[in-house]
Amino acid sequence: MKDAVAKKLISEHLVSGEMVAGEEIAIKVDQTLTQDATGTLVMQELEAMNLDRARTEVSVQYIDHNLLQADEKNAEDHAFLRSACRRYGLWFSKPGNGVSHPTHMKRFGKPGKTLIGSDSHTCAAGSLGMLAIGVGGLEVASGIAGEPLYLRMPEIWGIRLHGELPQWLSAKDVILEMLRRHGVKGGLNRIIEYHGPGLAGLTAMDRHVIANMGAELGATATVFPADDAVRDFLRAEGRDDDFCENVVEDADYDVEDDIDLSELEPLIAKPSSPGNVVPVREVAGTEVNQVVIGSSANPGLRDFAIAAAIVAGRQTDDAVSFDVNPTSREILADLTKMGATLDLIQAGARIHQAGCMGCIGMGQAPASGTNSLRTFPRNFPGRSGTKEDSVWLCSPETAAAAALTGEITDPRDLPNRLGVDYPVVDLPEKSTINTDMLVPPLEPDEASTVELIRGSNISALPDFPPLPEKIEAPVLLKVGDDISTDEISPAGARALPFRSNIQKLADFTFTQVRDSYPDDARKIADSTGHMIVAGDNYGQGSSREHAAITPRYLGLHAVIAKSFARIHWQNLANFGVLALEFDDPEDYDRIDENDTLLLDGIRDLLPGGPRLEIGNTTKDERYAVSHRLSERQVEAVLAGGRIPVLARRNEEAQ
Amino acid sequence: MKDAVAKKLISEHLVSGEMVAGEEIAIKVDQTLTQDATGTLVMQELEAMNLDRARTEVSVQYIDHNLLQADEKNAEDHAFLRSACRRYGLWFSKPGNGVSHPTHMKRFGKPGKTLIGSDSHTCAAGSLGMLAIGVGGLEVASGIAGEPLYLRMPEIWGIRLHGELPQWLSAKDVILEMLRRHGVKGGLNRIIEYHGPGLAGLTAMDRHVIANMGAELGATATVFPADDAVRDFLRAEGRDDDFCENVVEDADYDVEDDIDLSELEPLIAKPSSPGNVVPVREVAGTEVNQVVIGSSANPGLRDFAIAAAIVAGRQTDDAVSFDVNPTSREILADLTKMGATLDLIQAGARIHQAGCMGCIGMGQAPASGTNSLRTFPRNFPGRSGTKEDSVWLCSPETAAAAALTGEITDPRDLPNRLGVDYPVVDLPEKSTINTDMLVPPLEPDEASTVELIRGSNISALPDFPPLPEKIEAPVLLKVGDDISTDEISPAGARALPFRSNIQKLADFTFTQVRDSYPDDARKIADSTGHMIVAGDNYGQGSSREHAAITPRYLGLHAVIAKSFARIHWQNLANFGVLALEFDDPEDYDRIDENDTLLLDGIRDLLPGGPRLEIGNTTKDERYAVSHRLSERQVEAVLAGGRIPVLARRNEEAQ
Repeated sequence: MKDAVAKKLISEHLVSGEMVAGEEIAIKVDQTLTQDATGTLVMQELEAMNLDRARTEVSVQYIDHNLLQADEKNAEDHAFLRSACRRYGLWFSKPGNGVSHPTHMKRFGKPGKTLIGSDSHTCAAGSLGMLAIGVGGLEVASGIAGEPLYLRMPEIWGIRLHGELPQWLSAKDVILEMLRRHGVKGGLNRIIEYHGPGLAGLTAMDRHVIANMGAELGATATVFPADDAVRDFLRAEGRDDDFCENVVEDADYDVEDDIDLSELEPLIAKPSSPGNVVPVREVAGTEVNQVVIGSSANPGLRDFAIAAAIVAGRQTDDAVSFDVNPTSREILADLTKMGATLDLIQAGARIHQAGCMGCIGMGQAPASGTNSLRTFPRNFPGRSGTKEDSVWLCSPETAAAAALTGEITDPRDLPNRLGVDYPVVDLPEKSTINTDMLVPPLEPDEASTVELIRGSNISALPDFPPLPEKIEAPVLLKVGDDISTDEISPAGARALPFRSNIQKLADFTFTQVRDSYPDDARKIADSTGHMIVAGDNYGQGSSREHAAITPRYLGLHAVIAKSFARIHWQNLANFGVLALEFDDPEDYDRIDENDTLLLDGIRDLLPGGPRLEIGNTTKDERYAVSHRLSERQVEAVLAGGRIPVLARRNEEAQ
Repeated sequence: MKDAVAKKLISEHLVSGEMVAGEEIAIKVDQTLTQDATGTLVMQELEAMNLDRARTEVSVQYIDHNLLQADEKNAEDHAFLRSACRRYGLWFSKPGNGVSHPTHMKRFGKPGKTLIGSDSHTCAAGSLGMLAIGVGGLEVASGIAGEPLYLRMPEIWGIRLHGELPQWLSAKDVILEMLRRHGVKGGLNRIIEYHGPGLAGLTAMDRHVIANMGAELGATATVFPADDAVRDFLRAEGRDDDFCENVVEDADYDVEDDIDLSELEPLIAKPSSPGNVVPVREVAGTEVNQVVIGSSANPGLRDFAIAAAIVAGRQTDDAVSFDVNPTSREILADLTKMGATLDLIQAGARIHQAGCMGCIGMGQAPASGTNSLRTFPRNFPGRSGTKEDSVWLCSPETAAAAALTGEITDPRDLPNRLGVDYPVVDLPEKSTINTDMLVPPLEPDEASTVELIRGSNISALPDFPPLPEKIEAPVLLKVGDDISTDEISPAGARALPFRSNIQKLADFTFTQVRDSYPDDARKIADSTGHMIVAGDNYGQGSSREHAAITPRYLGLHAVIAKSFARIHWQNLANFGVLALEFDDPEDYDRIDENDTLLLDGIRDLLPGGPRLEIGNTTKDERYAVSHRLSERQVEAVLAGGRIPVLARRNEEAQ
């Protein structure tokens, strides 16, 4: 048996550690990407590190999240990021150029390389045979500075694809099938590797769809082999020379599963979790008032072109808003050349600027309680911008069908119902290539003289003190399973503009769960601080480190959970919050909100090993809990986070 | 001498009054338009009037303002408006269909008709030989209910155009020349009528540009003759039968002026008034960080196509965000068919959904203190969404030039500077016509059964009590000349979503002038209430009646000003606020903020004639002031506004 592609990628980049599942390893970082909602913090972290110039092969800052510009804050963040790219030697992708993931794949993605990004969907680049991992901003800042990425060695999960997708189905149905089978925790501590004869029917951009939503399974990464489909993709992008084959037959996997593509049917994730997947026909007939096409989960030219072909010459339903978010200006250019943009306009589409838009709640919020069908990756509660939202996730085919009928519709019913034949979409052999809005790094001499342009919304990062020796604090919040970072620190048009301003952003913390959390936490922040108790998979979803920083800023010392999602777990350590797991998950039920928990002698306990005990002084009980921190992480947590550690190192070096 | 076109239009629609400048007349209303930001109130007013069905020839509700949908409020307003259209027999233009003014012109505009609209730029339809007037929402509601429009007979101001515009100049430079000569008060109490041989070089859509910004001159309306250019326009729209010639040679005008088009040069309005007009070359070289094309002030296919032709094959400057707001999906379809959409995309444009967008501060806010060049009609302080903004108004030619160079640039310099020849733009003979997103009225039987869909943001209109017999109240605010309704009740992404919720919207009142105004006013609303003292042209700009309602809700009893802008003056009367003018403008200087003013015996004084005296108990002075209210308006002001009057009438009728 042979090493799987993912394992080869890791061993080629291994800096330290042993490749045994669960052990901490360190790998070399070739490329990084940041988007604007997380990037402003990353640039401030580079500044705090006194970095002179990026040490990666390629680092790109994309502006794709904060595009609404409801007031001066967004534009000021863009100016700040542009100046930081000029200062630190990064590529700068202008607002309107496009969503980071597909743009990065088209212009910079390269088989055999590693990529980390401060966006949880960075994993999409696994479609090209890269090892691409979404991480917290501080990890990316470290990567830009030349540090390796530390992570726990995941298991490799081989998924054998065979058969061919039927008409009216596409890649989105494949990843929805994975979510139907395995749920939002199915991929925790795993890299998913797709292989087998079924790959032949999936283009590189189809694979992007599947790799992208590996994030929704909780996987560390998703990897496809670099095969002929990848070669074709790079050729269409004018980058033949960047191809490097990486295919492994009969590889060895830690876990295995199998999907017969020919047996799939159109699937849809019901509100409000990507894991609530059912066959479309089970919910057909449900009234729909909004349909949105776009996002990094269905970013390819094909995804827009098939929707355009389905609605071409027809009119979308009177009561439906049909919103289209082009992924990038290159894709919009291709779509326009094909005539598909015109088809969409004529059918009633609202064509928005290229970017993430509604996917991160920047506009396109539906009316309360009305159903919105989206080709997006996530439908966590309130992520749309509407508190009482009802968002469903599906393929472009299913979305377009609902736009025409005004109700959830199995697209396979379109021929009989509306006389729509399954469209043949001819894609161009060569993509439009336009790199003019991708501004290359300045030469070092010029870069070193650039001043950062700091708008009034860019506040300094708060200083966090070291973890106290004794924590005795109430459980301010007890939450259930699968709490997402959207619920901890919401995106959306109200909160996102404050991503560079922790002090203001803190006011939005957990308001999706309880409006009074920020006020309640502030009241005791300077005295006891507080703790949070959570169920399984705490902190799933987006990589935003704000979901660690803002509760920490409001006095959070520790989260005790049944289990944690990977990126958030790492972010908590990076910003000095103690993440503890129940040894016995049933202890979760024994703790109530407002119980006081006690942890004493922390400085001795943490380095002494993973297991410790936490007291409940209200109930006079004790619970066995574990931390999974590496030595490196223990140092950071005790110091109040990695920034004080890095700052101290810089001081010592001077 | 013969009656001018405007005078003929009035006399053909005269219901009562004498056509003597300054006298109140009433005219029949053929058509109405409403947009969503003002329309939600209009629909609530129809409901308050117990209207069964619109009595006009055509009434259309457009959704073009509140398109960002940062939360559920916008979409809920759209659903409310759709249900109201179905209930009351109005046309409904779906979100994304386009901006009201050019869409109305293309689909419904008809020479010889009258049109009133709850948007100050309704006057744009004067381009087709209509009498089109922007008014308050309550006037439109009354018009829909079959009531005539009351207004003071304006003077007719004839502007003779001759010569031909040079290359690189267009209609926007003509209206900027009018503003350069006459300023933002130049058109007060006037209808502007363009005539003369220079008309031959201006298409109907060019005339729309000029008529639209008649609002910025403060004019009651702008009228062009219905000549061959109008015939050509209607033919291109497939509406030959709606043409009806209306041309008057050697007409008689109350005032006259003359423009030689061949002598104009590119003009630009500096921040922050449309009246600050200078030649572009006077400010050339100023750094620019944003350029925006769009809005009802430059809505035509030509305006986008010429900008596209200028940037085609080139790249916009690295530090410039180049934003394009298509006016309607019909125009975007034509632009796409021509290949111009592709040129814009490739040159770096951010193509936004069709609608008003940045023009009313719904997104596209620039960074503080950076220069933004826009083809819009207005640059009042803060209207962009950025408090410290710096917005300039210019033609598409001047805007496109700055997008390429990154600085304010006379477009006539482009051939030498960048080798750009003056582009020849071939427009299609037939426009794209797509009425599928314009939903026609329901049949009466079905309409009468429709229930209004009222989202949680649609609150009932507050009840206003009758004007007290004695007002003794402090001057809470003293402001200067040309205060716009944008400064009184701001648009923009923060405030606009509350347009259906007066109680919440009130929190934004005058915050552009003084943050504490809403709180200060609330404190004394139930005791003394307050007054405002203002300079000339108080309430210029947008027609929003919210600028009368929200201060009234906060306890405003009277505004004493040197002069008032027409629509706001009418809105104040409609909602029971007393508008008084200083007989001696120098008395303005004698009053300070916080002086207490006294007006006693109001019920006898107001019907007794225009002149009255107001006391200053702080300074022990008295000032002669006048109201210009008609008998009808006096009744409304004393009753607390026209709604109580209408409600009482309805009760008496039952």
